[in-house]
Amino acid sequence: MSPLNQDRLFPSDPVQREIARSLYAEVRNLPIISPHGHADPKWFSEDEPFPDPAALLVIPDHYIYRMLYSQGVPLEDLGIPRLDGGPVERDPRRIWRLFAGHWHLFRGTPTRMWMEYVLHELFEVQVKLSAESADHIYDWIADCLTRPDFRPRALFDRFNIEVLATTDSPLDSLAHHQKLRDSGWKGRIIPTFRPDPVVDPELPEFESNVLRLGRITGENTASWQGYLRALFERRRFFTELGATATDHGHPSAATFDLPRTRCESLLNKALLRRITPEESEQFRGQMLIEMARMSIEDGLVMQIHPGSFRNHNAAVFHAFGRDKGADIPTRIDYVHAMKPLFDRFGNDRRLSIILFTLDESTYSRELAPMAGHYPVLKLGPAWWFYDSPEGMRFYRERVIETAGFYNTVGFNDDTRAFPSIPARHDVARRVDCAFLARLVAEHRVEEDEARELAVDLAYTLPKKSYRL
Amino acid sequence: MSPLNQDRLFPSDPVQREIARSLYAEVRNLPIISPHGHADPKWFSEDEPFPDPAALLVIPDHYIYRMLYSQGVPLEDLGIPRLDGGPVERDPRRIWRLFAGHWHLFRGTPTRMWMEYVLHELFEVQVKLSAESADHIYDWIADCLTRPDFRPRALFDRFNIEVLATTDSPLDSLAHHQKLRDSGWKGRIIPTFRPDPVVDPELPEFESNVLRLGRITGENTASWQGYLRALFERRRFFTELGATATDHGHPSAATFDLPRTRCESLLNKALLRRITPEESEQFRGQMLIEMARMSIEDGLVMQIHPGSFRNHNAAVFHAFGRDKGADIPTRIDYVHAMKPLFDRFGNDRRLSIILFTLDESTYSRELAPMAGHYPVLKLGPAWWFYDSPEGMRFYRERVIETAGFYNTVGFNDDTRAFPSIPARHDVARRVDCAFLARLVAEHRVEEDEARELAVDLAYTLPKKSYRL
Amino acid sequence: MSPLNQDRLFPSDPVQREIARSLYAEVRNLPIISPHGHADPKWFSEDEPFPDPAALLVIPDHYIYRMLYSQGVPLEDLGIPRLDGGPVERDPRRIWRLFAGHWHLFRGTPTRMWMEYVLHELFEVQVKLSAESADHIYDWIADCLTRPDFRPRALFDRFNIEVLATTDSPLDSLAHHQKLRDSGWKGRIIPTFRPDPVVDPELPEFESNVLRLGRITGENTASWQGYLRALFERRRFFTELGATATDHGHPSAATFDLPRTRCESLLNKALLRRITPEESEQFRGQMLIEMARMSIEDGLVMQIHPGSFRNHNAAVFHAFGRDKGADIPTRIDYVHAMKPLFDRFGNDRRLSIILFTLDESTYSRELAPMAGHYPVLKLGPAWWFYDSPEGMRFYRERVIETAGFYNTVGFNDDTRAFPSIPARHDVARRVDCAFLARLVAEHRVEEDEARELAVDLAYTLPKKSYRL
Repeated sequence: MSPLNQDRLFPSDPVQREIARSLYAEVRNLPIISPHGHADPKWFSEDEPFPDPAALLVIPDHYIYRMLYSQGVPLEDLGIPRLDGGPVERDPRRIWRLFAGHWHLFRGTPTRMWMEYVLHELFEVQVKLSAESADHIYDWIADCLTRPDFRPRALFDRFNIEVLATTDSPLDSLAHHQKLRDSGWKGRIIPTFRPDPVVDPELPEFESNVLRLGRITGENTASWQGYLRALFERRRFFTELGATATDHGHPSAATFDLPRTRCESLLNKALLRRITPEESEQFRGQMLIEMARMSIEDGLVMQIHPGSFRNHNAAVFHAFGRDKGADIPTRIDYVHAMKPLFDRFGNDRRLSIILFTLDESTYSRELAPMAGHYPVLKLGPAWWFYDSPEGMRFYRERVIETAGFYNTVGFNDDTRAFPSIPARHDVARRVDCAFLARLVAEHRVEEDEARELAVDLAYTLPKKSYRL
Repeated sequence: MSPLNQDRLFPSDPVQREIARSLYAEVRNLPIISPHGHADPKWFSEDEPFPDPAALLVIPDHYIYRMLYSQGVPLEDLGIPRLDGGPVERDPRRIWRLFAGHWHLFRGTPTRMWMEYVLHELFEVQVKLSAESADHIYDWIADCLTRPDFRPRALFDRFNIEVLATTDSPLDSLAHHQKLRDSGWKGRIIPTFRPDPVVDPELPEFESNVLRLGRITGENTASWQGYLRALFERRRFFTELGATATDHGHPSAATFDLPRTRCESLLNKALLRRITPEESEQFRGQMLIEMARMSIEDGLVMQIHPGSFRNHNAAVFHAFGRDKGADIPTRIDYVHAMKPLFDRFGNDRRLSIILFTLDESTYSRELAPMAGHYPVLKLGPAWWFYDSPEGMRFYRERVIETAGFYNTVGFNDDTRAFPSIPARHDVARRVDCAFLARLVAEHRVEEDEARELAVDLAYTLPKKSYRL
Repeated sequence: MSPLNQDRLFPSDPVQREIARSLYAEVRNLPIISPHGHADPKWFSEDEPFPDPAALLVIPDHYIYRMLYSQGVPLEDLGIPRLDGGPVERDPRRIWRLFAGHWHLFRGTPTRMWMEYVLHELFEVQVKLSAESADHIYDWIADCLTRPDFRPRALFDRFNIEVLATTDSPLDSLAHHQKLRDSGWKGRIIPTFRPDPVVDPELPEFESNVLRLGRITGENTASWQGYLRALFERRRFFTELGATATDHGHPSAATFDLPRTRCESLLNKALLRRITPEESEQFRGQMLIEMARMSIEDGLVMQIHPGSFRNHNAAVFHAFGRDKGADIPTRIDYVHAMKPLFDRFGNDRRLSIILFTLDESTYSRELAPMAGHYPVLKLGPAWWFYDSPEGMRFYRERVIETAGFYNTVGFNDDTRAFPSIPARHDVARRVDCAFLARLVAEHRVEEDEARELAVDLAYTLPKKSYRL
């Protein structure tokens, strides 16, 4: 029997708890729609066993190693590879023990809830994680991983995933997606078009990326029109392999609607590396409008994920590279930043934009009022640091009264930690049921409406919003 | 029997619910003080029947049509008039059906609670609103509207409104207020002096408005002194007809205390339309100080409503004009912006400023600390998008510990939807009783204090704060 | 018997209340660690009786007089001394009566809870405070104050304070700390090094302070190196008398890492009063990096308290001076501002920075993500206006999921109101137990973990974080 309490995350008030249980019964077994995330398609195309507990559950999870790092554990000791190839811990069991010995640090965090679900529901571990139980649990999981029912495709089926979207560079050949499609396996795994590598002039690889984009598509990407044609062609290619959405991870939400000559000049400067930070911001902002224009043509839903100061820790960045738990949210403005895009396409019903934020102060002030008005706009769920019980509750409390439920799009797990996908959806479903239970208990919605809403939030809205 | 639950908006915890019920019993029948809103005085001076359900409840309510618009319903289909006179839906029944068919969109919004109160308490509709019941309810309400007890004055009396303030341009003749006064009817309806049309140089009509102000008052409003005298004279006129307050809806909270020569020059530039946006900001900011100075003289309470980016949707603005649900809040600074005004008059006990915000992040950071110190400052209630159960609760939780209850002013309904006034006050009273019930249940205030506070918030504070 | 309810601040839900009671039983009698505050060491070195109820409880408490001032009570009537020596109320009984007559203003504020604890638990007053009981309570307290068990040292012992840190200028001789040390009394009272008077060029006394610093240390503080040596020497002196921490109260969180020639030039300009506001900001920001560097050497924990607009009310400042309840929080950026410091020392495990904020919007957006990553960073508790039940709950809800409990440092009372110290710690312990009780009741942490966490938050974390 799992040590997880069946009422976890439900309010303790008996009236609300009873309603929450009843709502959750309607959604707990619904298929998982995962329209935004960072799973590796290779797992499924090759269907190899996952290597070991540390490589599966610790080393790739920046929520985990950032917390240990914040408490003084060197990243090397956790097996995070150094860019200079310098020595790091190679023994997965030692990494696992180090993690287990710091398990108390995660009290009160969502990582704790996800990991417990993975341990007790997925691997059916019967003891609690601790320094003492570390070896036992390590062996138990390692043993599971050798079994066929813990291979990626088997887990995908067991997780009841109806569709899983990955996030991919326009330069990616999508070979694994192609291979998956050719394999005859029925799991639906689709790519998402994320053009950041070829639209952000501040990346050191921008020039080579754009030239590669040209080679891939046979377009002259040094010209503005060729560059746009190449992008549109790659979108077509992604769509062929099932993509229904694009994704844009910009430092800000700035959009620009510049004259064509200015666009040409910016691209030119960018390729010659003579572009200023302000001009790079303009270029990225212009590209959001270009992408919106293409979305109107090809029907891809447009996701915008702005506001992260990437690689804030210079030393960690130099030693370990990108995405090492050192991205920090910044204050962000949407009202002025998005106006050029809305002025151009804000009322075009063919376009659908899903907007995310890392600045909770914008929920009620900017995002909900905009989503409650503009036909093109829907709000993505509580994102990243806010993909947590308090974070999701705060999101609902600050967004719904102005935007309504139907201008939101349900849950995204947004994870590269594949085994945690059911855990994350379960937390989200429970938190939404708890929120709805309060509304019912306070006679703010009827129970039959709440039942419908619970299903909409867990299943219908993500499916519909992402045109799946 | 009304389908509305008598415990709506009360906490489900039995201890808190019992206290909330008991507090609510003290305030539910108190007269309504409506010191800030947008009712049309003509309704009461002419006392004609309201035309039809759509014209009464849908077409004028931007909370309603913004939500439908956000989900793809054209504003034309809702009967919103186009500026170019182009065709829009004219059949109120079809508009009502369209609204009813989208009723689920309002789940979890305050509009839902207000409308249900209007349907079930005011019109005593016995069935729930839906696509199926739309026609029945339409006919039922249409029938009510033909009856004398649904005429404006009868409703005013039935609503138990002790005083209702409208919001009026300084160019308004206040003919309806005069007519009301002459009619002998006892309902107290008073104007509020809102000088925006003659103090905002960025309005296209600024110059003609200022000249008209001059004609009305016999002053030379092209001169700074004449312009100020004209404004003071209009304030006097409003006061004669019962006004106790002014209102100022500026894009920011900026105040300026400029030398007289600079003021003269700014007015000059504004009238010649040679004023920059920065200078317009200075002019408006200067006018807040001028208005404060006049308030010290004539005793009018000064309301400031800053921080809305008006008419954010360019296409909607061009097709339909102002106030079409496309105003979006912006981030705002009060600490630096209000300093010139506070430096000048912040300690003058004759002055009373009621400040509002659309930026909830300022509640605890700026507004409560300022209101808990400056003798001239009180905080208006949760405004506009935050006039909702979660919005009002958040306001209390973030404001009261620093500002106390007595630096707030109770509730404003701020509505042009006259039939919803009792609904809005009822929601506010319930939410305040729920908040107080938690304080009592957690032994943070005594029950007898909570009783007093409930009455203060519902009745005493608005009456006193607005000098009614 | 005290009129205080034993369950105050606990949730009313019976499940949560029971857990909260049980957690609180573990922490209520733990010794008080007070690692940051503004007690006067003279009280303890001289151990004189406190003069009278008004001088003890009203006149020094800006939470109290700011509220009364906001409601129109002149500061003079509360006995606040004027800078010009003008007449102010001298009769402590009249001041006490004035305070008591306005007691209702504090409903819902933390001041109310603290004062009630002081009255009923410390002084064992049996009646509630009101205009009617004012004289009786005044006499009762005045009588207590004549007794030996109400002298400062007796109270210190009775309060079960294990360690109390004061906050002191680098120019302070620490004579009272020395005298305390020499006295043989066992109470542990330690200084904190707060260099603001000699690092902020915008203070009018900056130049004379820096010269005095030179005289005290025998260094030439007009030279950059001499100035730094003098500061380091004073830190050494503070450390000798027990200091374990520094504190920095800057207007912003800006840090700068400038070339040495620029530092020399800024110091030079500052001493000649030819420094611009931007340069002053640079100088202060540079000094944070210098202080961090010294902390790595001498081990002092570094506290940063940024974001207060000091003395916002010009008239009050001119009439009464600093710290008169007119400091207002401002919006603040940490992500860009702290980067130079983190670039330099963010990964140095010898350094420990405790960061505070007055801008709650930064809790989840900036502070928790940074503290959950940077090894040098911990978050101070909810500060100043947020040192309140709702403030502390909001802090936990917005911080813990990302930073975890162990990147926070427990409670600071931060007070100059010595008799209220147990009251403040009691409120914090209750609020933390209530928060933990919800986590337990919702099966988010286990009860045994919550027990450990309650003790960590109340005792272990402050002791460890401040290296006590």
